[in-house]
Amino acid sequence: MLIKIKKENSIFNFSKTNTPIAKVKPKEKICIETKDALSDEIKSESQPFDSINWEKVNPATGPLFIEGAKEGDILEVNIENIKITREYGVMLTGKDMGVLGDSFERSFIKIVPIKENKAFLYDYEIPLKPMIGVIGTAPKEGSIPCGTPGEHGGNMDCNIIGEGATVYLPVNVEGALFALGDLHAAMGDGEVCVTGVEIPAEVFISFNILKDKDWKLPMVKTEKNIYTLASKPSLDEASLTATKNMVHFLNQEYKLSKEKAMFLLSAIGNLQICQVVDPLKTVRIELPLEFLK
Amino acid sequence: MLIKIKKENSIFNFSKTNTPIAKVKPKEKICIETKDALSDEIKSESQPFDSINWEKVNPATGPLFIEGAKEGDILEVNIENIKITREYGVMLTGKDMGVLGDSFERSFIKIVPIKENKAFLYDYEIPLKPMIGVIGTAPKEGSIPCGTPGEHGGNMDCNIIGEGATVYLPVNVEGALFALGDLHAAMGDGEVCVTGVEIPAEVFISFNILKDKDWKLPMVKTEKNIYTLASKPSLDEASLTATKNMVHFLNQEYKLSKEKAMFLLSAIGNLQICQVVDPLKTVRIELPLEFLK
Ligand SMILES: [Ca+2]
Ligand SMILES: [Ca+2]
Ligand SMILES: [Ca+2]
Ligand SMILES: [Ca+2]
Ligand SMILES: [Ca+2]
Repeated sequence: MLIKIKKENSIFNFSKTNTPIAKVKPKEKICIETKDALSDEIKSESQPFDSINWEKVNPATGPLFIEGAKEGDILEVNIENIKITREYGVMLTGKDMGVLGDSFERSFIKIVPIKENKAFLYDYEIPLKPMIGVIGTAPKEGSIPCGTPGEHGGNMDCNIIGEGATVYLPVNVEGALFALGDLHAAMGDGEVCVTGVEIPAEVFISFNILKDKDWKLPMVKTEKNIYTLASKPSLDEASLTATKNMVHFLNQEYKLSKEKAMFLLSAIGNLQICQVVDPLKTVRIELPLEFLK
Repeated sequence: MLIKIKKENSIFNFSKTNTPIAKVKPKEKICIETKDALSDEIKSESQPFDSINWEKVNPATGPLFIEGAKEGDILEVNIENIKITREYGVMLTGKDMGVLGDSFERSFIKIVPIKENKAFLYDYEIPLKPMIGVIGTAPKEGSIPCGTPGEHGGNMDCNIIGEGATVYLPVNVEGALFALGDLHAAMGDGEVCVTGVEIPAEVFISFNILKDKDWKLPMVKTEKNIYTLASKPSLDEASLTATKNMVHFLNQEYKLSKEKAMFLLSAIGNLQICQVVDPLKTVRIELPLEFLK
């Protein structure tokens, strides 16, 4: 039986003080409705830019209490399917937004019609590759805005967190208090303009709980690759941490020495950028699964 | 007729004061022999690490004087073929080298046998994907070590500069004074351990000269994508410059407004890491050629 979580249940901060909106069990099929990152409020390019309510940016639907998830466990999130639920996406860029924010005089809203498995940006046909921008659990202490990424996950804007991917997040508090939102119909690595093609969606997921694993999170697994992710003030710091975390994983699970892990990552791994436009920047390092044996 | 350039003709700095070892014409077929980045001096894992002569690291074969290349032109380098000329590659990592250089007590040499289109790192079979680590022209002023990347190209360690790629470099002085070296049989993005699978090689190339183009270089074109590259003290700075340079290119060649270029890059472009281990760090931004029209 499918459990449906409505998008009216949303948070703007990950925190253990949030009240769970539902209790779910491992393996249950769950459909999470999400608003777009602008709370579904942009409907036209002629809408005045300062009509955007920034207090309502980056809603995440949740939090869900996952039964059996105890502090120190790992929450495995299996992303089975993503359904785009609107016929257009929204992009923003301009003054103080994105990589070239300094060089714009004003800001721009772009409506991106979506049909027949394509997003139509001007006359460019962008293939759809739906992904989840915000996915996380409550931190141990304090409150982290849904626009900020970190060890709890959050706004990592990682291109490969899409259909078929598995995300590993820390359980910092009982029940994990999981939430997700900020779906993109497509987004390039970097997210340089400051948004992907922002959409509301239905995300079909299920959970598992891993016990007694010493992994540094977040991690992601796809059909072909495994990744460690890190979010830090600079890409350089994020690169260091993502690499360290992968070396730690390879040592824990496959007994690789540090030098063996580093040679392998340098020869066949890939250090990759998730996004450079959020309060912390996110890097992932990729290793093909075929090299795990 | 193939012009062969022997690897004994090498430089350790890009500079206009270097004496050209040969004059070549646009469209001529050229085979450039290269030593590996350790000047072919590592032959065994038991070789003492401090036997490495660091003054002889990163030789580039050249420089070539390209007839007709005038200051302000763009040198187009077509990489037709790369032939690995030794049955093993070399990797190094350890103390003060690579992303985890701080956490090693000692250093390591790894010999990587190459046969049947694979590199054998321990028992890992790494598919060969030969690429050029160092490729550049003389800067306008001064001398840039071959281990350092920059606007002149140099040690960019860019994974996609391989067979079939076209590299665009600035002509800062008459004849360009082109050189290349530091071939890798394989390397992952980031080059996190500090080397790729270092090999000597024969690189088959030809040149063209582009006049009257205002592009910010270096740039690379592959079968499917176009890239702008930037090398800066931090990945964050390099990301900014690479993105700016692509926006400039899209404006110059395709009349795209800044916001249109940024929306396009954010939806379908990819900001990617070349390397994080050289004196400056190198980033590229990728745009599929199918979106250039
Ligand atoms: Ca986001
Ligand atoms: Ca977003
Ligand atoms: Ca973002
Ligand atoms: Ca190099
Ligand atoms: Ca090298």
